[in-house]
Amino acid sequence: ELSFLLEDIHYADVAEIINELNDDEATYLIKLLDSDKTSDILTELDEDIREAILGNLSAKEIAEELDELDTDDAADIVGELPKEMVQKVISQLEDKEHAKDIVDLLRYDENSAGGLMAKELVKVNENWNVLTCVKEMRAQAENVTRVHSIYVVDDEEKLKGRLSLKDLLTTSTKTHIKDIYIPKVDYVNVNEKPEEVAKIMSKYDLEAIPVVDEIGRLVGRITIDDIVDVIREEAEKDYQMAAGISQDVEADDSIWELTKARLPWLFIGMMGGIGAASIINVFQGAFIKFPILLAFIPLMQATAGNVGVQSSAIVVQGLANDSIKGEIWGRLLKELILGLVNGLALAFIFLLISHFGFNTSYIVSFTVGIALVTVIVNAALIGTFIPIFLNKRGIDPAIATGPFITTSNDVLGILIYFSIAKFMLNF
Amino acid sequence: ELSFLLEDIHYADVAEIINELNDDEATYLIKLLDSDKTSDILTELDEDIREAILGNLSAKEIAEELDELDTDDAADIVGELPKEMVQKVISQLEDKEHAKDIVDLLRYDENSAGGLMAKELVKVNENWNVLTCVKEMRAQAENVTRVHSIYVVDDEEKLKGRLSLKDLLTTSTKTHIKDIYIPKVDYVNVNEKPEEVAKIMSKYDLEAIPVVDEIGRLVGRITIDDIVDVIREEAEKDYQMAAGISQDVEADDSIWELTKARLPWLFIGMMGGIGAASIINVFQGAFIKFPILLAFIPLMQATAGNVGVQSSAIVVQGLANDSIKGEIWGRLLKELILGLVNGLALAFIFLLISHFGFNTSYIVSFTVGIALVTVIVNAALIGTFIPIFLNKRGIDPAIATGPFITTSNDVLGILIYFSIAKFMLNF
Ligand SMILES: [Mg+2]
Ligand SMILES: [Mg+2]
Ligand SMILES: [Mg+2]
Ligand SMILES: [Mg+2]
Ligand SMILES: [Mg+2]
Ligand SMILES: [Mg+2]
Ligand SMILES: [Mg+2]
Ligand SMILES: [Mg+2]
Ligand SMILES: [Mg+2]
Ligand SMILES: [Mg+2]
Ligand SMILES: [Mg+2]
Ligand SMILES: [Mg+2]
Ligand SMILES: [Mg+2]
Repeated sequence: ELSFLLEDIHYADVAEIINELNDDEATYLIKLLDSDKTSDILTELDEDIREAILGNLSAKEIAEELDELDTDDAADIVGELPKEMVQKVISQLEDKEHAKDIVDLLRYDENSAGGLMAKELVKVNENWNVLTCVKEMRAQAENVTRVHSIYVVDDEEKLKGRLSLKDLLTTSTKTHIKDIYIPKVDYVNVNEKPEEVAKIMSKYDLEAIPVVDEIGRLVGRITIDDIVDVIREEAEKDYQMAAGISQDVEADDSIWELTKARLPWLFIGMMGGIGAASIINVFQGAFIKFPILLAFIPLMQATAGNVGVQSSAIVVQGLANDSIKGEIWGRLLKELILGLVNGLALAFIFLLISHFGFNTSYIVSFTVGIALVTVIVNAALIGTFIPIFLNKRGIDPAIATGPFITTSNDVLGILIYFSIAKFMLNF
Repeated sequence: ELSFLLEDIHYADVAEIINELNDDEATYLIKLLDSDKTSDILTELDEDIREAILGNLSAKEIAEELDELDTDDAADIVGELPKEMVQKVISQLEDKEHAKDIVDLLRYDENSAGGLMAKELVKVNENWNVLTCVKEMRAQAENVTRVHSIYVVDDEEKLKGRLSLKDLLTTSTKTHIKDIYIPKVDYVNVNEKPEEVAKIMSKYDLEAIPVVDEIGRLVGRITIDDIVDVIREEAEKDYQMAAGISQDVEADDSIWELTKARLPWLFIGMMGGIGAASIINVFQGAFIKFPILLAFIPLMQATAGNVGVQSSAIVVQGLANDSIKGEIWGRLLKELILGLVNGLALAFIFLLISHFGFNTSYIVSFTVGIALVTVIVNAALIGTFIPIFLNKRGIDPAIATGPFITTSNDVLGILIYFSIAKFMLNF
């Protein structure tokens, strides 16, 4: 009766329910439901639950699930299996073409267009005539949920263009495809990064894009539903990195997993705090002569941190959507001016507050004000430079936001603050 | 010759080029190119450039562009026109059906499914027979770039289900639609939030979704390309909010625009710093007896800030993807434990460092350690509580990350630190 109840529910919803169960319950449910639903459910499950369930299934049972899936999803699951299972499962696949396609896909890096594409697509040879073409297409379309486009290839499987269904249906059956296809088609290389594929598909509003290998042969197709997942996951990852969370975690993960993701950045932040303490210790002279300087430590630090995070976030986004290209000097100059504008505005307000609120002496107020501007400019420059630098080195600039920037600006900000104060107040 | 050059370039690429030009050059180019390309270009331009160009076009010229566009894009452009232009432009539209559809769309909130949908779709009446249906569909499909699905409605225009093209083509022409349609179809209400639509379409891998009004009538359709834009823009906005950037800006915006977006949060952060200074002033006793306490201010503040940002980021994401629902107490308990675990780990390391590195007295080290744990737990609880609280009040919890959390934790962290120190060290 439970299986009857779940029959009418969409597989993505069943997957959400199963994600909340323990491993045994989850396995029980998967074995209970009929196979063409369970295969789809499996693709939607959290990785840890899927791993647990697959661990409880035989090679034959797993193969039965894979036979129901598109090649991209099947390859992803095979890629998660323990090494010794892979061969067993593959040899149990019923459809040998399907098995071949899955094995093909296994060799691509998960973080590339090849790792995202499926083998399911409709392609025709430019040398066929319309009649052959329609016949072949009908056979191919059986395996393809949504056709989207008909791709045209030459005898060497190289992508030549696409075919409009209308043109196909309105020309004589003897016409050669060569004479009616559209020689213009968007495509991506098999080594393209998923984020780049996402950019192209979203810019040109594509629902599917063909993938070609190094010599231009059509090897697969990426559909927009998988790119939507890429965009969402990428955004979540960047957001977490900016918040100092170093692994992909969710609110409902265990305390142990959350600690593993959070403690490393907290530790780095703490080292920054220790560094700042050492710097302050060096300037002990200020403790007695100008104790008020110490009270403004949080102000310096907070402002440095905020400015750095703002600057780096804008640069990271600019790099991601190509609105910043190479021009590091122009960018730094702009941030310098921006830092000066913001810094002078804040310093002016600070002077008013410190004069009327704290009745600090003019010279001390002025010192703190100058330090504030310098700290802001410095934080803006660091927040701009580090992501651009990392990006040039091929490192994801998104790690250079949040705690990374805050920590370096904390330490440097304190150093700048006390150096300027020592120079001006001579303690 | 320029227009010839641009002819072969995709409109989205031309839009990128035009975004870099000044207003006059941009207008010149738009007038130069032929109209069915320029209309698409217009939809892809930055809002400020589009506004400038439209300001240089007559009502008739604008109407000509709108006639080429899908209703959703046309309505978006009309929505940006100055009030006095709207009526003029609408009355110049050639296709009166198109004009009616655009006016219909104008009344929906931009931040809702209604504001995203287009009127272009294919729908058939359940009482038609297959023959009528095919005839009507052919006429409707002329205006629809990609059909995706055939929706079935009753005499009152209420959405009943969808039709499989295969079923349509394989039944007798006299069969009624009523007898062959699929009564199950995903849809959204016209008032649904764009983020919710995005969640549904991405979960069920949909390329288009019908939109119904309050009484279930089919009023439009949303396609995945527009949802991809929603997802990307939403992610950018959240990322900027978390970084303390209060308006949608880009790296190439003017210094004035960037200052407007950045200064407000810096000001709030500075007020936090001033608050912290006042608190520190209250505890002046420490300055003389335990100056080392002052050196650890940055440590307290950095740790409080980092923990708060981590906690709030996880909660904000959990709220966005529904993995956190209402359960505030369970959530707070979890963060309490997490804060204790992380806090004790860091305090232990701190004790080692302060003992060997700073040769601080046992009692002072111990005091700082206890304060550290308390500050961390407090920051974790605040970082968790505020976004959940805002969300309950219907405020976007994403504003409660970054500077907002850092600032409140700065001030509270300092207060907690010195209170504990005063209590334990009695200065
Ligand atoms: Mg199955
Ligand atoms: Mg893959
Ligand atoms: Mg787009
Ligand atoms: Mg578009
Ligand atoms: Mg797929
Ligand atoms: Mg990224
Ligand atoms: Mg989980
Ligand atoms: Mg709209
Ligand atoms: Mg999906
Ligand atoms: Mg999927
Ligand atoms: Mg649209
Ligand atoms: Mg949001
Ligand atoms: Mg701009």
